[in-house]
Amino acid sequence: MPDTTLPPTLRPGQLLARGVCRHLLTHDFVSVEELVPTSGLRVDVMALGPKGEVWVIECKSSRADFQSDQKWQGYLEWCDRFFWAVDADFPTELLPDETGLILADSYDAEIVRMAPETKLAAARRKVMVQKFARHAAIRWHGARDPGVSLYGP
Amino acid sequence: MPDTTLPPTLRPGQLLARGVCRHLLTHDFVSVEELVPTSGLRVDVMALGPKGEVWVIECKSSRADFQSDQKWQGYLEWCDRFFWAVDADFPTELLPDETGLILADSYDAEIVRMAPETKLAAARRKVMVQKFARHAAIRWHGARDPGVSLYGP
Repeated sequence: MPDTTLPPTLRPGQLLARGVCRHLLTHDFVSVEELVPTSGLRVDVMALGPKGEVWVIECKSSRADFQSDQKWQGYLEWCDRFFWAVDADFPTELLPDETGLILADSYDAEIVRMAPETKLAAARRKVMVQKFARHAAIRWHGARDPGVSLYGP
Repeated sequence: MPDTTLPPTLRPGQLLARGVCRHLLTHDFVSVEELVPTSGLRVDVMALGPKGEVWVIECKSSRADFQSDQKWQGYLEWCDRFFWAVDADFPTELLPDETGLILADSYDAEIVRMAPETKLAAARRKVMVQKFARHAAIRWHGARDPGVSLYGP
């Protein structure tokens, strides 16, 4: 039964991200949203697998949303696998073949095409897992202790 | 000005942990509470520094709380530095010399004695940073999306 907890402030891409993150958990991948791997780049979802796998998922709510993204190839070097997440109405023929595809709504998602793997070098994986950890911890800190003065991670 | 957001369900040790986590952030260390490094062990606070440093802080609210802890030496192998966190009334002469000391209340804390450093081996650090990341991410996920079905990390 779908829940009814749709915060009205979530944008369409963030609603897809919500479904994506829920689904990734069933693959034992934990995830965060809007992580900044390097200055000027912000990924919609970064997921961390049980063996330290790093996946990036960009959520596109429409053709225009996809076509305005000039940066996506810049994401590839920050992950082992790269996916698009789109809803059922999205014209998936627009998406490049060599990327993964996740069909999502705000409640759940499904991996339709596994992304090819390009393994991160060990040093970069270490940096990314640590960025992921700091991102998640600082946000969880703000949630469990609203009185804390939060700095950027 | 102290805030007034004291959830009534926090135990004395958890109140100390709150102050500890707030203070660690001023050192650019992010932290989580009640992480399980290995089956049968649960640390009160695990903190992750900007260079991947792993600290463990055990919070003791009273002499009895300290004396009933038979496991603390087992924590040493899971961190670079180990600290006790106690309040101003705690008889600190009970605490072993070769450990760090943090004086805490529920609002803030102060590192009174830096813990000696025993660096984790690279493989174990990698495991711990990943455990930290998964712990933080899964809790933050539950906080930002109350509708998610959460599994243990």
